[in-house]
Amino acid sequence: MSETAQSVEAVLDDLLPSGDGPEARLFAAMRYATLGGGKRLRPFLVVASADLFDVPRSNSLRAGAAVELIHCYSLVHDDLPAMDDDELRRGRPTCHIAYDEATAILAGDSLLTLAFEVLADEATHANPDIRCALVAELASAAGGQGMAGGQMFDLAAEETTFGLEEIRRLQALKTGRLFNYSCLAGVILGEGSPAARKALMDYAHDLGLAFQIADDLLDLEGDELEVGKKVGKDAEAGKATFVSILGAHDAREEANRLAGKAASHLDLFSAKADLLRHVARFVVERRT
Amino acid sequence: MSETAQSVEAVLDDLLPSGDGPEARLFAAMRYATLGGGKRLRPFLVVASADLFDVPRSNSLRAGAAVELIHCYSLVHDDLPAMDDDELRRGRPTCHIAYDEATAILAGDSLLTLAFEVLADEATHANPDIRCALVAELASAAGGQGMAGGQMFDLAAEETTFGLEEIRRLQALKTGRLFNYSCLAGVILGEGSPAARKALMDYAHDLGLAFQIADDLLDLEGDELEVGKKVGKDAEAGKATFVSILGAHDAREEANRLAGKAASHLDLFSAKADLLRHVARFVVERRT
Repeated sequence: MSETAQSVEAVLDDLLPSGDGPEARLFAAMRYATLGGGKRLRPFLVVASADLFDVPRSNSLRAGAAVELIHCYSLVHDDLPAMDDDELRRGRPTCHIAYDEATAILAGDSLLTLAFEVLADEATHANPDIRCALVAELASAAGGQGMAGGQMFDLAAEETTFGLEEIRRLQALKTGRLFNYSCLAGVILGEGSPAARKALMDYAHDLGLAFQIADDLLDLEGDELEVGKKVGKDAEAGKATFVSILGAHDAREEANRLAGKAASHLDLFSAKADLLRHVARFVVERRT
Repeated sequence: MSETAQSVEAVLDDLLPSGDGPEARLFAAMRYATLGGGKRLRPFLVVASADLFDVPRSNSLRAGAAVELIHCYSLVHDDLPAMDDDELRRGRPTCHIAYDEATAILAGDSLLTLAFEVLADEATHANPDIRCALVAELASAAGGQGMAGGQMFDLAAEETTFGLEEIRRLQALKTGRLFNYSCLAGVILGEGSPAARKALMDYAHDLGLAFQIADDLLDLEGDELEVGKKVGKDAEAGKATFVSILGAHDAREEANRLAGKAASHLDLFSAKADLLRHVARFVVERRT
């Protein structure tokens, strides 16, 4: 994972604009929000899924960078005062604290836009049908009927008490869709079979749920310095989460069960999928 | 223009999501910010440019709708309190006033994302190379090195006194790039010759400048009820504009000169470009 993270960092550094003039502040904020931190879990999923089909890294790293740009934009906007109002992210001041709100809004917008520019470029894949599929699926995963809709759902969760089914649906939108896309991008780049696609989508589904439950547990039990962002926010806001509904013990068991189930979907790839199997364990055992 | 506006409205209505559940508020805000208003000037430029090459309207209207989604997202975000802090737009409360800031941020994000989903869909054009070109060029025009960079530039204009050359560069980014794209989309869809492309880019360049000067004049002399948004903002903020630098009289002459010059670039299209020639006049004579 750290090897992929380093490669993704280099690709992102190359893709992000820099320059002088009045826009320099915007470019600096885009770089601040994207570079020098993060687990790069989504790009890792893109690259590891694409590896199953022997896709050149030069292609999968660009697709992975595009997903990470979307993820970073969503963090910048979600952290804004009008949204989750967070001041700490990856152990540093959030973008609107380090810069200002207007710059953070524009930086998020520009990162979002850049993701599609990266995917549509022929450096991402020689086949334009594949590039269009990458664009269309990412837009679907990230937009109003995907991740952004999930954030709207999440804001409503502070005012309504949701049950387990609603929390599941919220998570499927807010974090699940981008996890699914990350694995799907590998299948699209590698022109994988329908069976391979189904296996990776089932894997991504369980992995995403396990990740979210682990996230809720970190919010309850994690250390702010280690996690790098404010913790205890869900309980403070009285928000229903997997942990508040299941309790910490059962939630941990459920996350472990899902991580094992995620790995079990990968049987048809044999040893080639070992990295993806390891990631399922990492996702529930991580401390950050 | 009003015929195209009606057709674009129908396409947008069809493309925008609707539904129940906690995301319904987001979908409603996206619709509020997009439907029922606006001159639809950019989609008109896409359609009229594509008409020069006999592109089917079913294609050009979708590309036009995508540009309008980008334009509407930019209005929603630019109107936010952290940016231009506007409460009136197209004669109605701005999106964050009608809804709230978080919803407006997410609605803008979702409109931006939807634009790329629309372009990447094969309904926009059967040829995936053309769809990828539409996506890549729109992202380039709208992103940090285009429109969003122009808005960053514009925010800096309230703190620095820019000269004419800087105002020109600001305008080229903030409004010019999307005007250029609108005409370029017609060339891309119609696979126009390099000469046709150059002619339309020259037209779009002069049209965009004329449009901006007319906009500055409306901010100085327009009627708030007619214009549908707050006027007198530039002078209030002490912002340098074409009008503050040239004076109203010379600015109006310059806008008229540019409108005539814009039309003159279209000679190679003969009578087929009459609509585009008329638009150049409309842009400087409009009252809203």
